[in-house]
Amino acid sequence: MSDISKITKRIVDFRDARDWKQFHNPKDSALSLVLEAVEVMEHFQWKNAEEMKEYVKTNKDEIADELADTFYWVLLMSHDLGIDIAEAFDRKLAEIDAKYPVTKVKGKHSKYNKLK
Amino acid sequence: MSDISKITKRIVDFRDARDWKQFHNPKDSALSLVLEAVEVMEHFQWKNAEEMKEYVKTNKDEIADELADTFYWVLLMSHDLGIDIAEAFDRKLAEIDAKYPVTKVKGKHSKYNKLK
Amino acid sequence: MSDISKITKRIVDFRDARDWKQFHNPKDSALSLVLEAVEVMEHFQWKNAEEMKEYVKTNKDEIADELADTFYWVLLMSHDLGIDIAEAFDRKLAEIDAKYPVTKVKGKHSKYNKLK
Amino acid sequence: MSDISKITKRIVDFRDARDWKQFHNPKDSALSLVLEAVEVMEHFQWKNAEEMKEYVKTNKDEIADELADTFYWVLLMSHDLGIDIAEAFDRKLAEIDAKYPVTKVKGKHSKYNKLK
Repeated sequence: MSDISKITKRIVDFRDARDWKQFHNPKDSALSLVLEAVEVMEHFQWKNAEEMKEYVKTNKDEIADELADTFYWVLLMSHDLGIDIAEAFDRKLAEIDAKYPVTKVKGKHSKYNKLK
Repeated sequence: MSDISKITKRIVDFRDARDWKQFHNPKDSALSLVLEAVEVMEHFQWKNAEEMKEYVKTNKDEIADELADTFYWVLLMSHDLGIDIAEAFDRKLAEIDAKYPVTKVKGKHSKYNKLK
Repeated sequence: MSDISKITKRIVDFRDARDWKQFHNPKDSALSLVLEAVEVMEHFQWKNAEEMKEYVKTNKDEIADELADTFYWVLLMSHDLGIDIAEAFDRKLAEIDAKYPVTKVKGKHSKYNKLK
Repeated sequence: MSDISKITKRIVDFRDARDWKQFHNPKDSALSLVLEAVEVMEHFQWKNAEEMKEYVKTNKDEIADELADTFYWVLLMSHDLGIDIAEAFDRKLAEIDAKYPVTKVKGKHSKYNKLK
């Protein structure tokens, strides 16, 4: 079951069953989002390309865990702020598609640097 | 259309049409994930509860933009690392559901602090 | 002994005695800087003003530890990149002093928001 | 002039002349610390060793700017929390000196990974 609105519902149900909404102001929730994203990044520190490749093979579940945590906060924050993340994503993709036309940026690092 | 695998496919198609995969090693991709999460957080800095409430009303699209960017990198990283994010999320939710039983943590800040 | 160049020398000596310079490229060092800054921030998550006040009283050493780690990486990175941090700081302070004249920004939140 | 207490005094004077202390709770100040550290890191994204070397040569002042901003927040937060950062640093260096004896960790990546 990989439908965003269904997954969001499961997150909200989990949270509300514990009566934790009272703690979830946007600032502290965003801190969680950052903390989890940083934990994803930490997996790759001090490793070169070869070491990362090897590491990913043997630690896939640990990395997946941190990506799932980040995912959790993206969906929960979107819900709490009244944001339809699928719709926001559609808008974003249309925007960067127009901003980075294939003919101009294909394989270009310099252009790529500007995508954030 | 809010199915994760379909959204992931659109992200990968967007990236591959531009031949940008060559730049996407896990470390630099994770940096993007962190940068975008930090941009979400930045929206709420220096604001109290009342100011955040007001700000969310008038800047919903700007916040949604940064959440969509974070979402983009969660899905793209998951794809590149061979991680099924929906499955990783299922596992994670089962894990925290067992770790934080409703009867023990309901409405409790102290317990909540330990959830990361 | 609180002279920056002397503290920097102690950090570099500590590092070089262990022959760790080989691992310290700017990207991975910057990751450490971010990781330590995030650990400072984590101390304050989910706490309101009153709770932070109390927490600072009872956990000063733990917070000081993370600030010291961040400080370590600021000085080590500056050294490795050939940056005189005291000089860079002088330049920065002159710049923000000119950018935010006291007469215009005194006590103003709106102006303040723009200081980064 | 590179004495930490003198630099701290200049930061506090700068801040207090603008009456900005009222906005500086630990959580929002820590957000600034993180934001600035992330801006240091951003300079090195998508660059390999050779590209970083070249980049550092031509963009030293820009990197120095972000390190100075991070430095500013380390010192201001330490001051506001009543932390003597030079003393905290002494304690930290003694701690990691004991934790990572030269004879055991010299040139070792595996051990190094554990230093945070």
